[in-house]
Amino acid sequence: MIDVCLLGTGGMMPLPYRYLTSLFLRYNGSSLMIDCGEGTQMALRKAGYSPNPIDVICFTHYHGDHISGLPGLLLSMGNADRKEKLTLIGPKGLAYVVNQLRIIAPELPFEIEYREYTENAADFEINGYLIHAFRVNHRVPCFGYTVSVKRLGLFDPEKARENGVPLKFWNRLQHGETIEEEGRTYTPELVMGPERKGLKITYATDTRPTPSITENARGSDLLILEGMYGDWDKFDRVKDHKHMMMQEAAEIAREVQPSELWFTHYSPAMVHPENYEKELKKIFPNLVIPRDGQVTELNFED
Amino acid sequence: MIDVCLLGTGGMMPLPYRYLTSLFLRYNGSSLMIDCGEGTQMALRKAGYSPNPIDVICFTHYHGDHISGLPGLLLSMGNADRKEKLTLIGPKGLAYVVNQLRIIAPELPFEIEYREYTENAADFEINGYLIHAFRVNHRVPCFGYTVSVKRLGLFDPEKARENGVPLKFWNRLQHGETIEEEGRTYTPELVMGPERKGLKITYATDTRPTPSITENARGSDLLILEGMYGDWDKFDRVKDHKHMMMQEAAEIAREVQPSELWFTHYSPAMVHPENYEKELKKIFPNLVIPRDGQVTELNFED
Repeated sequence: MIDVCLLGTGGMMPLPYRYLTSLFLRYNGSSLMIDCGEGTQMALRKAGYSPNPIDVICFTHYHGDHISGLPGLLLSMGNADRKEKLTLIGPKGLAYVVNQLRIIAPELPFEIEYREYTENAADFEINGYLIHAFRVNHRVPCFGYTVSVKRLGLFDPEKARENGVPLKFWNRLQHGETIEEEGRTYTPELVMGPERKGLKITYATDTRPTPSITENARGSDLLILEGMYGDWDKFDRVKDHKHMMMQEAAEIAREVQPSELWFTHYSPAMVHPENYEKELKKIFPNLVIPRDGQVTELNFED
Repeated sequence: MIDVCLLGTGGMMPLPYRYLTSLFLRYNGSSLMIDCGEGTQMALRKAGYSPNPIDVICFTHYHGDHISGLPGLLLSMGNADRKEKLTLIGPKGLAYVVNQLRIIAPELPFEIEYREYTENAADFEINGYLIHAFRVNHRVPCFGYTVSVKRLGLFDPEKARENGVPLKFWNRLQHGETIEEEGRTYTPELVMGPERKGLKITYATDTRPTPSITENARGSDLLILEGMYGDWDKFDRVKDHKHMMMQEAAEIAREVQPSELWFTHYSPAMVHPENYEKELKKIFPNLVIPRDGQVTELNFED
């Protein structure tokens, strides 16, 4: 089960009634965040979460509205006496940018690990989260993310017997141990059925529609895409600044067929994104036009 | 007339219901701000102001909660197409700190002038604001500010006649011009009565009580002081971290006798500062326990 909360839905600047876009996930006691603009720590508190269990923060790019809240969040994590390492993931420049910003958060009681990537795609595995970064198309290098969790197969006693696994090892093997005895190695695969469908979330903002989004978003339980504007009068501007219309996001969803589509990164000039709901549902019906703090619970299939 | 708005009243971290401490003044079409923590641009909008007419921002010190909102505010001013120079005032390190933070706001359509001071006191005059910085006592170099505006004397035709000022110059002189004619220099002082009482605001936070606060705050129409806690159980902590109790602030006001005392920089742990109102009014009655967005209008005496 993954808890999902879209802490904020805004682009460019935080507003009194709309925090900047930031995605917050909880899985197995560990929290992951994507993007952290000014005010994200307020949005986190408002949604009822503590900053302390955040173990990973991924950045799509380093425009201010996606990272300006980091120093404040780090200070708050420090004040809450966090001791565990925090992992930051982002494209080239991560450590440089964060170290500059840390002029106001120089001393922290926890270690920061920088996992900076330079290719057009990169993979990370942390606390059960499988994180995949993929290049999108913005005015500066910018990346989308898929975050997946695997689901093991069921224990299969038939298979265990066929593979000649001694009964005394069954329990330990199905809990993931590998056991050696008398020169033979017993692995969990010998007792487990095939891996089952896991969960997958895709998040991409500050980009034109790209084939990379379509490819990477396939099989998503939740697809979260930028919807800067819904008004076609703004299209030239959106295109020039390398952003995405709500309708373009819905078109991607029509092709990818996620279980659900959410929008984010609304322009401050778009006060009522919900006005476009009817039109957008004609393109892809399973969509939500989130407000800050939109939550869902993604569950493994029965 | 000066419009005063205490945009936020919080210390340490911004909360969903309490922005970080920041003072906003408007006088004669020009706005001045003191401190700019994470979320201050949201507080500004919530209070109904635009960031664009801000000409001066003063910083008390460079702890995150007093400057973390600057890059976002600069970006928003840039997006609003500000062209006029912005003046930043602060103790030693100003340009260094701001330039580091500007890694996420590198390109702005306006000039930034840094007015950095290294002494224990410093004076600036900008757009009619007389700004005086004075050293206080915190864990790092920290300064309080007085902001005053002068009030000219009344035009005095008697005096103009006595000084032999030709009638044709009276109007220009009373509007501040200096005029030379036939080897003689006519200054406004020749036609104006004595300067009248102006307006004065004093703001000091993140400090223990100091003689410098008492001295500089004298004659204030509004005195705004830190009130980190009202509960004496927190006194040791407040003292160790070089902050100020609400009661200590009220004691300063009792000595200084400002027209009004406001508190700011409440600890996130103090949810209801208004609980101490009765006790504090016994020390100094003319006080307000502000919430975010507290406003007043300071007017020249009749």
